[in-house]
Amino acid sequence: MKRIVIWGSTGSIGQNTLEVIRQHADQFEVVGLAAGGNAEEMIRQVEEFRPRMISMADEEAVEKVKGAVSYPVEAVWGEEGLLTLASLDEADFVVSAIVGSRGLPPTLTAIRAGKTIGLANKETLVMGGSLVMEEAKKAGVSVLPVDSEHSAIFQAMNGERADRVRRIILTASGGAFRDWPRDRLATATREEALNHPNWSMGAKVTIDSATMMNKGLEVIEARWLFDLPYDRIDVLIHPESIVHSLVEYEDGAVMAELGTPDMKVPIQYALTYPDRLPLATEPLDLAAIGKLHFREPDYERFPCLKIAYTCGRAGGTMPTVMNAANEVAVERFLAGGLSFPAIEEIIEEVLSRHTPRTNPRLEDLFEADRWARETAQHCGVRVG
Amino acid sequence: MKRIVIWGSTGSIGQNTLEVIRQHADQFEVVGLAAGGNAEEMIRQVEEFRPRMISMADEEAVEKVKGAVSYPVEAVWGEEGLLTLASLDEADFVVSAIVGSRGLPPTLTAIRAGKTIGLANKETLVMGGSLVMEEAKKAGVSVLPVDSEHSAIFQAMNGERADRVRRIILTASGGAFRDWPRDRLATATREEALNHPNWSMGAKVTIDSATMMNKGLEVIEARWLFDLPYDRIDVLIHPESIVHSLVEYEDGAVMAELGTPDMKVPIQYALTYPDRLPLATEPLDLAAIGKLHFREPDYERFPCLKIAYTCGRAGGTMPTVMNAANEVAVERFLAGGLSFPAIEEIIEEVLSRHTPRTNPRLEDLFEADRWARETAQHCGVRVG
Repeated sequence: MKRIVIWGSTGSIGQNTLEVIRQHADQFEVVGLAAGGNAEEMIRQVEEFRPRMISMADEEAVEKVKGAVSYPVEAVWGEEGLLTLASLDEADFVVSAIVGSRGLPPTLTAIRAGKTIGLANKETLVMGGSLVMEEAKKAGVSVLPVDSEHSAIFQAMNGERADRVRRIILTASGGAFRDWPRDRLATATREEALNHPNWSMGAKVTIDSATMMNKGLEVIEARWLFDLPYDRIDVLIHPESIVHSLVEYEDGAVMAELGTPDMKVPIQYALTYPDRLPLATEPLDLAAIGKLHFREPDYERFPCLKIAYTCGRAGGTMPTVMNAANEVAVERFLAGGLSFPAIEEIIEEVLSRHTPRTNPRLEDLFEADRWARETAQHCGVRVG
Repeated sequence: MKRIVIWGSTGSIGQNTLEVIRQHADQFEVVGLAAGGNAEEMIRQVEEFRPRMISMADEEAVEKVKGAVSYPVEAVWGEEGLLTLASLDEADFVVSAIVGSRGLPPTLTAIRAGKTIGLANKETLVMGGSLVMEEAKKAGVSVLPVDSEHSAIFQAMNGERADRVRRIILTASGGAFRDWPRDRLATATREEALNHPNWSMGAKVTIDSATMMNKGLEVIEARWLFDLPYDRIDVLIHPESIVHSLVEYEDGAVMAELGTPDMKVPIQYALTYPDRLPLATEPLDLAAIGKLHFREPDYERFPCLKIAYTCGRAGGTMPTVMNAANEVAVERFLAGGLSFPAIEEIIEEVLSRHTPRTNPRLEDLFEADRWARETAQHCGVRVG
């Protein structure tokens, strides 16, 4: 019986994780849940899964849940609460599906407490890749990918020697604006950007798909998860999102994981690795799909991908600043009043004002993160 | 240092195996070579690789080689010679790339002598799958696939639990007549049938591709190599031959091996398994290829594939008879004077006349093989 904690349990990844656990009640037990303010959904989850401890964004949300559930669940809140939940004695495995840079500190805590990490939060490795992987090595803890691309690579490397990898190839759907000409992007609305062709995901990651910053974050994440230099990490546009990613080996063989887009597959793989378990999903029917398409990404039309490679290679505080600027820019776009290209303009503006630090400590990363957020909040940009 | 014997060294697989060994002279040593009558090529190979023993089809060919090479290579001939070579003390690994049912007896000998088998000869398992796998289990010997489809499945199963496989999917280019309507097949010439779209292979297997009997033989081979029932072995038409085959797991994940068509990749994988080594091949460029196509096979247009499933399921002497009838029918087609659809007509005619035996011994298989060849030789069919 694996005892699971889920951070971000009311979000898309969180709910899919609970669905996986629901299908394997004999294998997995939920011991902790964390969410932001969605008390209503948390109440349902607590009643169904009966965790020992929950954490919410604030005391108000916590009180709402405590007042409504049928047993005295232990409840904590805020950043401190998340850290408490991160080192919960009963837990073996933490699924980190918090959105944004807030995922980093509790992940470090969970690693130091010896928990296996199922990582859906890209920003943890984008900001703190070097620190996190160092701590994981020290603690003898595995950091397992939970998103579909990195899970595909992880599956395609199962049983293989890592030093035989020639390169990994992250596939990208190309997002909502894959087939839009560059000049039309200026007119793109919030609703159009949120209309992802293949995956049903949260708003932040859907916008990141439309700018292709999502793939940029994944490139940086892959660098740390698989300990590969950036020139061995490629991106390939694959509109159908059927080939989830590929690994090319030194003998020319390319191993890939394919499937119908369903987050439950990579989530369950992280939970069952190195084994697999049955899962109720729609089987892949390649004959019905008929055709799969592939093309090179257009780095001019989607500069965020290029920015991510540049910041990743620069290292230090650069990926942190890029990520923070992106988070704020996406928030501002989602709030309305910004044009779609303003997202990349804000990121570039913030990066151009930043004085990078090499070998940053955790405090330096958070200082850079705060500075970038502040700067991104007040960048003057074209209004949509 | 792995010490290798190659049966069929002057053929396509044999020459590719020698090219792999040439690239890794520090890892592999050729200790034995067997071929039919191509003395000229054998002389070149003996001079380059300096095996301890060779085997040829007859004494004449052997004398030609012995008279021309610069050292006293030990030379044997005929069926007996092949059996001698099969149990050569110095050998660790035998690549069986003989064409046809002649591959079965020496494979059993090599297995009993404890050699690892790299199997490119499909007929060995089609005829004697049950016997061969039983002997291999008894001797603790691995039978590793050397053709691209089974190697892809084998690679996609590396590190996985076999009991988590939901089904395997063998891809098929569809051969030279993939896009021909059924009624046009009656007019197909020898040259058109030999014009395979993707792979450069020997004449027998190229014709088998055109009838899709090749895929049928592979289905039966897969049943034995991977110990799977026929309803877990599917075939998918994939004209580009880039996805070499796929494995669907119980969680819905589909693992595949892809690459530019190059037999050196599966050959080397068998030699280096479970490791990989560098290999000079053309890297896969999916963006340049652009599109991959998939569709269901048409069992009406290519009845040989259906026949193979039926004979595989029936078991006993049926696959042997099917295979022998096919070999003779293809020989007759290649010799000229037969129409292309006559190949399947001969096979069906021979099968309809056969009284099947269950649980056949090796002698029964060879008796059925002889009978089927004799019958196929004299079947009355339409003339092309």
